[in-house]
Amino acid sequence: MRWSQLYVPTLREDPADADAASHRLLVRAGYVRQLAAGHYSLLPLAARVRARIVAVVREEMERIGAQEFLLPALHPAELWRRTGRWESMGEEMFRLTDRKGAEQALGMTHEEVFAHLAEELRSYRQLPQTWYQFQTKFRDEARPRSGLLRVREFTMKDSYSFDLDEAGMARSFEAHRLAYLRIFERLGLPAFGVRASSGAMGGSGSVEFMSPSAAGEDLVVRCPGCGYAANTEKALSALPAVADPAERTERTGPAEQTERTDRSDQAGTFAVEEFATPGARGIEELAERHGIAPERQLKTLVQVVDGALTLVLLRGDHALVEQKLLDALGASAARPATAEEIAAALGASPGSLGPLGGHGLPVLADEALRGRTGLTCGANRDGFHLRGVSIGRDVRVTRWADLREVTAGEPCAECGAALEVLRTIEVGHIFQLGRRYTEALGVAVAGPAGERVVPLMGSYGIGVERLLAALVEAHHDERGIRWPAAVAPFDLVLTVLPDRGGAVAEAAERLCGELGAAGVRVLLDDRAERPGVKFADAELIGVPWRLTLGARGLAAGTAELTARADGSTRELGLDAAVPELRALAG
Amino acid sequence: MRWSQLYVPTLREDPADADAASHRLLVRAGYVRQLAAGHYSLLPLAARVRARIVAVVREEMERIGAQEFLLPALHPAELWRRTGRWESMGEEMFRLTDRKGAEQALGMTHEEVFAHLAEELRSYRQLPQTWYQFQTKFRDEARPRSGLLRVREFTMKDSYSFDLDEAGMARSFEAHRLAYLRIFERLGLPAFGVRASSGAMGGSGSVEFMSPSAAGEDLVVRCPGCGYAANTEKALSALPAVADPAERTERTGPAEQTERTDRSDQAGTFAVEEFATPGARGIEELAERHGIAPERQLKTLVQVVDGALTLVLLRGDHALVEQKLLDALGASAARPATAEEIAAALGASPGSLGPLGGHGLPVLADEALRGRTGLTCGANRDGFHLRGVSIGRDVRVTRWADLREVTAGEPCAECGAALEVLRTIEVGHIFQLGRRYTEALGVAVAGPAGERVVPLMGSYGIGVERLLAALVEAHHDERGIRWPAAVAPFDLVLTVLPDRGGAVAEAAERLCGELGAAGVRVLLDDRAERPGVKFADAELIGVPWRLTLGARGLAAGTAELTARADGSTRELGLDAAVPELRALAG
Repeated sequence: MRWSQLYVPTLREDPADADAASHRLLVRAGYVRQLAAGHYSLLPLAARVRARIVAVVREEMERIGAQEFLLPALHPAELWRRTGRWESMGEEMFRLTDRKGAEQALGMTHEEVFAHLAEELRSYRQLPQTWYQFQTKFRDEARPRSGLLRVREFTMKDSYSFDLDEAGMARSFEAHRLAYLRIFERLGLPAFGVRASSGAMGGSGSVEFMSPSAAGEDLVVRCPGCGYAANTEKALSALPAVADPAERTERTGPAEQTERTDRSDQAGTFAVEEFATPGARGIEELAERHGIAPERQLKTLVQVVDGALTLVLLRGDHALVEQKLLDALGASAARPATAEEIAAALGASPGSLGPLGGHGLPVLADEALRGRTGLTCGANRDGFHLRGVSIGRDVRVTRWADLREVTAGEPCAECGAALEVLRTIEVGHIFQLGRRYTEALGVAVAGPAGERVVPLMGSYGIGVERLLAALVEAHHDERGIRWPAAVAPFDLVLTVLPDRGGAVAEAAERLCGELGAAGVRVLLDDRAERPGVKFADAELIGVPWRLTLGARGLAAGTAELTARADGSTRELGLDAAVPELRALAG
Repeated sequence: MRWSQLYVPTLREDPADADAASHRLLVRAGYVRQLAAGHYSLLPLAARVRARIVAVVREEMERIGAQEFLLPALHPAELWRRTGRWESMGEEMFRLTDRKGAEQALGMTHEEVFAHLAEELRSYRQLPQTWYQFQTKFRDEARPRSGLLRVREFTMKDSYSFDLDEAGMARSFEAHRLAYLRIFERLGLPAFGVRASSGAMGGSGSVEFMSPSAAGEDLVVRCPGCGYAANTEKALSALPAVADPAERTERTGPAEQTERTDRSDQAGTFAVEEFATPGARGIEELAERHGIAPERQLKTLVQVVDGALTLVLLRGDHALVEQKLLDALGASAARPATAEEIAAALGASPGSLGPLGGHGLPVLADEALRGRTGLTCGANRDGFHLRGVSIGRDVRVTRWADLREVTAGEPCAECGAALEVLRTIEVGHIFQLGRRYTEALGVAVAGPAGERVVPLMGSYGIGVERLLAALVEAHHDERGIRWPAAVAPFDLVLTVLPDRGGAVAEAAERLCGELGAAGVRVLLDDRAERPGVKFADAELIGVPWRLTLGARGLAAGTAELTARADGSTRELGLDAAVPELRALAG
């Protein structure tokens, strides 16, 4: 391929709106152009990289016995209604009405359509089945961002397994887990599996694959000791207990404004006391002005969970993970209550809230609060707090759950080492779905004794263009992209230096032909540009090797081989160039 | 690949709703399943055939220097508004509103998006450019039918060329025309190019590629003499002139009901006369009851063209081609006027209509009516007709155009041979678009002298799944599909006959491995089915060769090789099987 005939609209400057490195470089190096927020056109270089990624993913799917399908992108609403997801997918699903007035969805994922096909399965002898496709997914993201990292339209390799029993589902899941790890390794993408929430997908377990990157949207907790890794949506740690004082706490607020409450003092060694905290409206302010350490405060949040007001209790220095809240309650949507909703329910403003009193709301408490005594919380009276509050005695907890965000440095629950928190890009997600979809769609086969068996399903997804962007995140420097050999759009740029007689161009053409015949993907830079421009462009687009041929080298029978990875350069004898370069090619 | 591990849900019976052979066979042989009208899931066998078609099309695109892109399927309405097609595409375009309230279209085609990308072209030195993709197209067809032949969602290879001048556009067009013919030839699809209307695409010329089939929706006129071929939307013929009588016609109607009209008789040899035709409401009835040959009648149609009432005149025995009407007027939509609209405009009912009188409507006449005299037409008075009508003298024609449908047996306009009319499937369509899209989207480059040049565009499309179905239409028999070697999902079915000891299965496994290593695509029929079922299934799915291995043959060192094309069978020595079969493989 000649550079002069390849459409590579490189830009001198970084695009103004690009936040992530991959976004900036893919635009600047002429790989992609934005059509609209979240919709990108892939130009020839990106299409080449994408094809190589697709080929690797396809090989690894075939290796685990998955069969390739291609299903429609536009789905009848009726199918999504049968699993309840027509409603639950909310605004993220693109919907339309066709000329006959029928409602349609653009596929965000294909559990429904694949399970619908599986209705034709008849016998346990046909199981397991693993079906996959490369198909466009459409998701009406609230905030498309970071170039190809979060878009509204992308290619997904999605696969779906159908098994007769739990053990079979676990085997299909494990086969995919290993296949995904092989895919990332072959592509040259640093990535590892983490335990994750199954979210809107449902089911009994899921693993996300994460690639560390500053451009990532996910936080992952990882243990350098034992390898434990989990999304913060799911991560646990062995939090050291807080030593609550065994005696009554000292008064730290202005004494004249407090009043003794009338509670009995059975469970703790101190009673609940209201005290005035004028102007102290948060955990931090209470700590600063009244000397109450955050970990000895009770944080009271009011959330609207699937439409119902719920009190959520956390340790004062802990943050709520919304997905943990949803998972704990099996809910699909949560949001903080408005100030109006809070005032109506508790009679106070945020900053003075607490779980005591006759509010009648369910109280969900984080596990880290179990057995805690002598805590401080809001009094549900603006400007007042309560101290001496004991969980259990004073607060009736409706439900306990792990709700809090694990932070860096906490001890690993499995080995005790200090946990790290990493920013990552999710590059794959696999789910054990169980029977949710097969039951909803009436998938059933005859078992060995003729009995009716509803197969268990797994679902497995990799976003192709996100992989492409994640690879750039992992492999770039200030001069441009540095593609791993396995996915580079070309193995080699053959840079022709200016030459009066044309002998260099001619020799380069010949060499290019020989390399092509040997299976090396060569981009012949035949443009009438200065050498500096050619070198910079080759670095920007990120081809792993550059071979530079000039008149002097040609006369000596050599060319200069430069590695994009480290910039190292060496002389290469033209006689041995083809076999040497073939050995280097990805 | 083992048949036991491949999902091929063959059916014993033809599906009830299948009209076309390809529809019937692709469903029955387990290639496709309908998700909804016009939306099909491709199962593993179909995905394999599709991949082979895609590979051939891609190779031929690369061969003509086209560069692969991948553009979004969801487009902002704004882009389509700039070319006027947001409005003109009408109900066939799927539209939706996203969560932010922005209007979007699902791409029916990609002229707008590719031309939008081309806005970045700067210099004539960058031209020509030819860009292509394989991308899903969405079209809200009024009547999806015939399985994969007319659907609402399909993969299209669409390419777009940008050239500096007309000669360049013609070169790009010709390169595509030849590439398409090579594609059809390589795939084994009988197809030929025909002149076609550019329809909603606009532009200066187009060629459709047609594959003859009873399941086709298009009629094509073809000359067996000189090779002239055109869609009936565009076809011409050398129609012999009708000899109009040189004298006044005899009265054939009941004399007492006619009355002499007051027209002068300058141009013809007879005057216009009204006569009563009670109950004769059409061309045929007028011919039967009053002896007026259809070719001597004037057919008057009232059409609503882009909202305006228009009279359309044809010879009595000729049929209107709606696309010719649209092309003649540069209009985008036409429909017959309603009886109410006609009565309001002409004061009469269909069956008594004519172009005379002070109706004030534009009159569009078919070329075959030029110079005709002494014709009969409706009197715009129910139950009455006029005779002695001469075009020009009595009828003021606003515009002449070719509007009629050419029928079989008419003489070729180029060589005089009798034309054939064939039913065909459109398998490709290429357009010279000129500057319509580049101008609308502001594409311009600097020419050699620095002047502003708006490039000329071409657009070229092949529907991938329609090709797959057209191949089945062209290659099947009563027992199933007969894939051409180039696209078959497998080259060979290796059928294992029942055998007690397992030696046959073992030998088949080994042979299968050797064939696979030699590049032969083998499907090993290892199922526990009767030989008859295995043979019938192999014929149904249409694999070109079947090798049958049994205990007796194994002992003798032979297997039986059967050709799907003609059912012929011969013995094959197992020693030479691998090289022989490799030579047969596609």
